[in-house]
Amino acid sequence: MSSHPFDTALTLTPDFDTAPDQFLGHTSPAWWNMVGPFGGVTAAIALNAVMTHPSRLGDPVALTVNYTSALTPGPFKVVATPVQTNRSTQHWVLALRQTDANGVDVVALTGTAITGLRRDTWSASDLPCPEVPRPDSLPRNAAPGGKLAWFARYDMRSITGPLPSKWDGGAASADPQQASLTQLWIRDEPPRPLDFTSLVAMADGFFPRVWLRRALLVPAGTVSLTVYFHAGPEQLAESGTGFLLAQARGQGYRNGFFDQAGQLWNAAGSLLATTHQLVYYKE
Amino acid sequence: MSSHPFDTALTLTPDFDTAPDQFLGHTSPAWWNMVGPFGGVTAAIALNAVMTHPSRLGDPVALTVNYTSALTPGPFKVVATPVQTNRSTQHWVLALRQTDANGVDVVALTGTAITGLRRDTWSASDLPCPEVPRPDSLPRNAAPGGKLAWFARYDMRSITGPLPSKWDGGAASADPQQASLTQLWIRDEPPRPLDFTSLVAMADGFFPRVWLRRALLVPAGTVSLTVYFHAGPEQLAESGTGFLLAQARGQGYRNGFFDQAGQLWNAAGSLLATTHQLVYYKE
Repeated sequence: MSSHPFDTALTLTPDFDTAPDQFLGHTSPAWWNMVGPFGGVTAAIALNAVMTHPSRLGDPVALTVNYTSALTPGPFKVVATPVQTNRSTQHWVLALRQTDANGVDVVALTGTAITGLRRDTWSASDLPCPEVPRPDSLPRNAAPGGKLAWFARYDMRSITGPLPSKWDGGAASADPQQASLTQLWIRDEPPRPLDFTSLVAMADGFFPRVWLRRALLVPAGTVSLTVYFHAGPEQLAESGTGFLLAQARGQGYRNGFFDQAGQLWNAAGSLLATTHQLVYYKE
Repeated sequence: MSSHPFDTALTLTPDFDTAPDQFLGHTSPAWWNMVGPFGGVTAAIALNAVMTHPSRLGDPVALTVNYTSALTPGPFKVVATPVQTNRSTQHWVLALRQTDANGVDVVALTGTAITGLRRDTWSASDLPCPEVPRPDSLPRNAAPGGKLAWFARYDMRSITGPLPSKWDGGAASADPQQASLTQLWIRDEPPRPLDFTSLVAMADGFFPRVWLRRALLVPAGTVSLTVYFHAGPEQLAESGTGFLLAQARGQGYRNGFFDQAGQLWNAAGSLLATTHQLVYYKE
């Protein structure tokens, strides 16, 4: 059993005798964010229930998770149910639950996933990998202070659109296409061979676009995250323990919610995943 | 009761005495596509169960639906369950089921939705509305032949990237950013005031990007659709019965699945929704 902090966080024990398709897990302090664990690792845990389920057909092609309430430190249950299995695709319904201090069952995550048998077909990308400086020419981002344990789990190297150094409300470039653009290199720290679950976690590795757009540290948190997988086993192997190039841009911001679109490529330039999320914000 | 074909298709009858959160509906021949109904109307039906549920809190902010098996003509059940209600957001789990000819329960759709109370906040868009010819200067697209009833339910006017006129495998522009771009004006036919459900249906109004990209009519079908709502009641009212500008671009295509990113603005230039989908294709 790997002692990598990512594998520790993803450890699930089948509990099928208690309830069908149910796994038991435990939150991991190494991944703590401001309120609850880093959402990327929670999404990865939900996907890991699919990956370790004995009935799984094929590899992940799509995942959507919704963060319904903050996880508290302690045990949780994940249920991953294959509700419909076709010839080459399989549809999953996901839920993560905790029992609160009053003994009440709280839903912490809802979601769906699709796995599939992939066939060799015509393939292409309309999102060519941006030409950017290589990671070894860039310094590792300094960890922000405070309790954000999860930052130390990644080696991140900003290229464009880093976390603002001044929270003076004066950011926003004149070009709306660039005003909320972040590009960074990211890999697990310590390095770990890329798999579908770690790809999901890194797809959530961006700070909220509204912070960059406004240079204001307003309260914000992801409510829904979708990942589409363009990587198969071949592209994962090609990625190895190397850096991924991650890019995100804000889209619309209105009355308490904004969304972003993101992409992840490996160092060889292969598009591994596209990702979108809806984020709650205040003010 | 409206006799508009969209309202007919969305008609649901609460069946809470039989099962909690369950509604009964019936497929509508006016919306038939190649195999089963137009996916946009099926997604709208799932959202309509949320919209008509007596426990609903607020307006839709996110919707994800997965098409698990083709609907057959006849009755169906929709279950929309509010699994977690917070102070300002509510999380829904969605399913659409049919009983097949052998009496077996088939899941036709899985999904999740989030509704929320929206507060007046700082708002902006990083996706300015493209400058394009107005709809009254463009001809209405001719309906393709055959059985595609749903095409007659919309007035669509192509601006960029129409359905290829020759299926000769020779399309694809040299610029990957443009090769799979479609822009069109779209409104209900006959006109109908925009609401959240019709916005969802129009978010699925694009033909598969792989057809445009390759000029080849390969088998293709949406497997997962996500819509993020930037419109509130004010933007819906501003849109009225007018045309929406709909834009979509392909992203990655690999081994049987591609994804697209799309946006919808009203004629006044307000961003109403962003949308993403994963599509299965052959060859």
